[in-house]
Amino acid sequence: MRENIVVQNIERAEQAVIDGLAECGVATIHEAQGRVGLLAPYMRPIQTDVGVAGSALTISGAAGDNWMMHVAIEQAKPGDILVFAPTSLSSDGFFGDLLATSAQARGVVGLIIDGGVRDTRDLRKMNFPVWSRFVHAQGTIKETLGSVNVPLVCADALIYPGDVIVADDDGVVVVRREKAAEVLKLSRERMDREEAKRVRLANGELGLDIYDMRPGLAAKGLKYV
Amino acid sequence: MRENIVVQNIERAEQAVIDGLAECGVATIHEAQGRVGLLAPYMRPIQTDVGVAGSALTISGAAGDNWMMHVAIEQAKPGDILVFAPTSLSSDGFFGDLLATSAQARGVVGLIIDGGVRDTRDLRKMNFPVWSRFVHAQGTIKETLGSVNVPLVCADALIYPGDVIVADDDGVVVVRREKAAEVLKLSRERMDREEAKRVRLANGELGLDIYDMRPGLAAKGLKYV
Amino acid sequence: MRENIVVQNIERAEQAVIDGLAECGVATIHEAQGRVGLLAPYMRPIQTDVGVAGSALTISGAAGDNWMMHVAIEQAKPGDILVFAPTSLSSDGFFGDLLATSAQARGVVGLIIDGGVRDTRDLRKMNFPVWSRFVHAQGTIKETLGSVNVPLVCADALIYPGDVIVADDDGVVVVRREKAAEVLKLSRERMDREEAKRVRLANGELGLDIYDMRPGLAAKGLKYV
Amino acid sequence: MRENIVVQNIERAEQAVIDGLAECGVATIHEAQGRVGLLAPYMRPIQTDVGVAGSALTISGAAGDNWMMHVAIEQAKPGDILVFAPTSLSSDGFFGDLLATSAQARGVVGLIIDGGVRDTRDLRKMNFPVWSRFVHAQGTIKETLGSVNVPLVCADALIYPGDVIVADDDGVVVVRREKAAEVLKLSRERMDREEAKRVRLANGELGLDIYDMRPGLAAKGLKYV
Amino acid sequence: MRENIVVQNIERAEQAVIDGLAECGVATIHEAQGRVGLLAPYMRPIQTDVGVAGSALTISGAAGDNWMMHVAIEQAKPGDILVFAPTSLSSDGFFGDLLATSAQARGVVGLIIDGGVRDTRDLRKMNFPVWSRFVHAQGTIKETLGSVNVPLVCADALIYPGDVIVADDDGVVVVRREKAAEVLKLSRERMDREEAKRVRLANGELGLDIYDMRPGLAAKGLKYV
Amino acid sequence: MRENIVVQNIERAEQAVIDGLAECGVATIHEAQGRVGLLAPYMRPIQTDVGVAGSALTISGAAGDNWMMHVAIEQAKPGDILVFAPTSLSSDGFFGDLLATSAQARGVVGLIIDGGVRDTRDLRKMNFPVWSRFVHAQGTIKETLGSVNVPLVCADALIYPGDVIVADDDGVVVVRREKAAEVLKLSRERMDREEAKRVRLANGELGLDIYDMRPGLAAKGLKYV
Repeated sequence: MRENIVVQNIERAEQAVIDGLAECGVATIHEAQGRVGLLAPYMRPIQTDVGVAGSALTISGAAGDNWMMHVAIEQAKPGDILVFAPTSLSSDGFFGDLLATSAQARGVVGLIIDGGVRDTRDLRKMNFPVWSRFVHAQGTIKETLGSVNVPLVCADALIYPGDVIVADDDGVVVVRREKAAEVLKLSRERMDREEAKRVRLANGELGLDIYDMRPGLAAKGLKYV
Repeated sequence: MRENIVVQNIERAEQAVIDGLAECGVATIHEAQGRVGLLAPYMRPIQTDVGVAGSALTISGAAGDNWMMHVAIEQAKPGDILVFAPTSLSSDGFFGDLLATSAQARGVVGLIIDGGVRDTRDLRKMNFPVWSRFVHAQGTIKETLGSVNVPLVCADALIYPGDVIVADDDGVVVVRREKAAEVLKLSRERMDREEAKRVRLANGELGLDIYDMRPGLAAKGLKYV
Repeated sequence: MRENIVVQNIERAEQAVIDGLAECGVATIHEAQGRVGLLAPYMRPIQTDVGVAGSALTISGAAGDNWMMHVAIEQAKPGDILVFAPTSLSSDGFFGDLLATSAQARGVVGLIIDGGVRDTRDLRKMNFPVWSRFVHAQGTIKETLGSVNVPLVCADALIYPGDVIVADDDGVVVVRREKAAEVLKLSRERMDREEAKRVRLANGELGLDIYDMRPGLAAKGLKYV
Repeated sequence: MRENIVVQNIERAEQAVIDGLAECGVATIHEAQGRVGLLAPYMRPIQTDVGVAGSALTISGAAGDNWMMHVAIEQAKPGDILVFAPTSLSSDGFFGDLLATSAQARGVVGLIIDGGVRDTRDLRKMNFPVWSRFVHAQGTIKETLGSVNVPLVCADALIYPGDVIVADDDGVVVVRREKAAEVLKLSRERMDREEAKRVRLANGELGLDIYDMRPGLAAKGLKYV
Repeated sequence: MRENIVVQNIERAEQAVIDGLAECGVATIHEAQGRVGLLAPYMRPIQTDVGVAGSALTISGAAGDNWMMHVAIEQAKPGDILVFAPTSLSSDGFFGDLLATSAQARGVVGLIIDGGVRDTRDLRKMNFPVWSRFVHAQGTIKETLGSVNVPLVCADALIYPGDVIVADDDGVVVVRREKAAEVLKLSRERMDREEAKRVRLANGELGLDIYDMRPGLAAKGLKYV
Repeated sequence: MRENIVVQNIERAEQAVIDGLAECGVATIHEAQGRVGLLAPYMRPIQTDVGVAGSALTISGAAGDNWMMHVAIEQAKPGDILVFAPTSLSSDGFFGDLLATSAQARGVVGLIIDGGVRDTRDLRKMNFPVWSRFVHAQGTIKETLGSVNVPLVCADALIYPGDVIVADDDGVVVVRREKAAEVLKLSRERMDREEAKRVRLANGELGLDIYDMRPGLAAKGLKYV
């Protein structure tokens, strides 16, 4: 009943918006868009102090089967991020240095995978960032079809092809393509507000005062002893 | 029935003792004080090769609620370490760069949190060390009271306000304030003893001989074949 | 009924073969030998971007008991890797800087442990690489006998004494001693084949074409839309 | 940016179709609809040997906050199943015997919750079935808005309001409302086919022969020794 | 530095209070005492539909060592519940049918253990209820001292000897001995209030109305569409 | 390099020995054979209060692939237990009621699987006992060869074809075929000794006295206060 398809033409957000979101970072964007869009905290980077943003090229494949990775790379445009979700739990290493070489040659800027990755040292050398659930060398097969550029659930988050993915050391967040510009605007406003607060906090002012929390705390009955 | 309180005056160990414990490190202190006081192994540092010690400023808050963080920072003295335990499981990001800026401005030297942290890249840049159970950007609310500077259980360990917290790459250990000086003395003695053994071991002597283990092994029936 | 024994003379693979395998890395070897031999993905390195290979000096010990570590080190030859599996789950810190000093003095080149390790910062400084299931400072005792150089199960893998262990950022793989030379040959052939493909992929050729996947995908019914 | 809404009128599948799916069970439906729609295996029943099907009344709420449960029950129609997903990890007990009493009075036939449940003994006595990630008594608050009858991700599965939920001892599966009748038809056909095979297998015929697997196994090189 | 002690005389709550608390159950008590005192949700019963209450006889022992169990049983009074916490993670089977026979002969009414238990079928036949973290047959040793009737942390909760432990299908909660009578009173009041609400909810009234939630929801901006 | 084979003739233990071991149970056998042979505690029964013993018919298959199950059933003799280990982590439902029907028709008495199982309610009705790591309905494929009746690692334990598997509510233990008779003898002796102790313990005697523990405790410094 399920059809396996490759959607060849998807819309993407403007590159300037994507680049702007990369600068804002995961936590800011998550807050700016109303505390939605985070992937599960088990998604961890294989590198340190790297942030990236790109358009989601989504890939649904079977557990332990990376055939669709190859299919997906043909669909990649420069600036895309591969987003792979297996249809059931799998720690296998779906992606390594050869696929990264191919993806990078096509302009892919990273991988988000709710499964395993391998050749992590090589990937770091190549500056190809990955956020994964597992690191494991286990080989995969090429037997079962999946789909490319369909909506999917990856690490608890619903992702549509062309959505903007932002990933850094805090994890991964998805921004709906059609809201990306607005989220960027809201994120920048939030960064500006935060910068002002940061200066005050750095000078020793308290959040209790800056945010006027004392009355609320007293009203709920907090006692100082 | 539960009261939510902020204890404003707590005793702390002498800074010289705290500094001394920082040099001893988690494993040595744990051994010296009789193999007690370790927090659970799921508490991991967000930075590498950093050790710190300080006085516990304890914070009990609701899952997904960081209101008490702000309350706590007002109570901080230079050299304190924030110790946060949610009252039930939560991976949310209770603490980020703004709170760290505020805490650092007050002299706080680190955070121990049995929950999530965010803005980890910024925290590393600020040299604000954190040991946490999760890294996640999920935002938190400010609705439910908790308590500051009360005894609490954090990651399996009972911690009193003013206890000395020592944290490094091996994890986190708590030393009772009133025993801190004695534990420091015992830790240093242990380090001296270990240094002597290290020299012998480095020269190729065996632990079997240095610790005279052969008779015990033979008595229990170990066979060499 | 169980006997506790120390097997003193075991065969090891040729050092040239071991060194060759170290250069191939975990993922390549795993593939070359037919996708077998990987340890579980929860085995993680305490250091980054380090690879090593050596002969397995196997150690079976009780949970929370590191007595057999001392027994094992006496049996070590230069180039050996300690492989420790507790007989039931234990996160305790069975191994730290003193044991590492002793092991290193005897020429041991690393540790694989399905349990906990401590003094991780010191171990990194000593360039003594470790792959472990846990990092924890919890002290261990010396009360229960175990065995050295017996076949054992470590992190899901069956390991015989003298097998070749290869470990890097992707995890750990075991190669049967008697097949090590053949696996090295197959691994090198695979690396050569991969290198050729890497060049083509880097030039933008697709895996779909290099591996001639299109007919298979079409035969299974993949639709492009 | 996020709006919190309650969608009051949703379409549901025909009751006869829902009842038919209940008889087919989770595994059969999952297969019949192309191996999609399963929730994660951590979703476990609090009762044994109970199966149920109903229309999804979806509820998105904050971690540790069950306010939206009350909002949702007003929207319930007889035959609905509550499907609750917190916006971040929470083991708290969002639902107990009072909410179950209220829900049952409105005709709700069960609960699927990617969080905690409590009063499980009472719920079993009431014949109110629950599939949950956790069992925990921890109380929840009523402070943060969420949404009712919006599409959401629950335990790895995307669920639309009005989709058919089928749950039994094997776990939980979601069937798209608009495909429910077709899936029922396919499920029944599958059951018929399976029944025929069951008789043959019970008589000692082998799957190897019934499914004609021997040539395929031989072609891939399986050796009998 | 750590002393291993057995405290022989501890105070216990009145049996009538303990029996009353058993009738209230875990969830009610947890709420009545201000949402504190729950043990972690990983503590699961080995039996179904059984509730019990008793005085905590606390036992701190080493991982994989059940020596202190024997020491503790001598200290037991009728109505006690054994509460065992290992000093580090252990899934070993610290307790089985022989210890249960001994404990039951002394009037012990159950076991709470942040470790493993074995002979679970026999324990069910004996009507000796257990809440544990693991079920595992792994044998334990008798080598390392611990303490009996000292305050300890068990599954995230601080427990003093003589505290009242209540356990049922929802998990385990601890009530401070000196507050037990008051918590019982509050729990009964809560049960009475809940009973009144249950009748109204069973009649189809909504929580939204009974608790007057509509204004609060509207004030925060919930939209019905 | 790996060969996929089916070993057709394996030796089995005497049925009388197997039946005797079934009566002894997992915990007793584990102790009697020197505390070895247990599978990991994550292996849980899908039924309650059922114990079984049989000869291991081992099956190594790929993650998410149950082809070898069919191959294995042809090799089954009455009294066999299927022991399935996937070559990497998989929660998929490798086994359900059709395979159980086929296996039962051949005299197979149970399944041990370090993966997922489905149709659990039907399996209970059929009195076909299963110990598994997961319960999940996820379908599997038939694409990759594995092996039957080869030594394998299942849930941390090394199992040879023809070994005796004993499973009950405490988990699963493996007994080497060639030692089965001796282990049975030792297990029965242990049961006799335990029965004598049980009577004494039931009469209120203490383990402290029966096992003469007091001198040892005193020698190590236990203090009664």
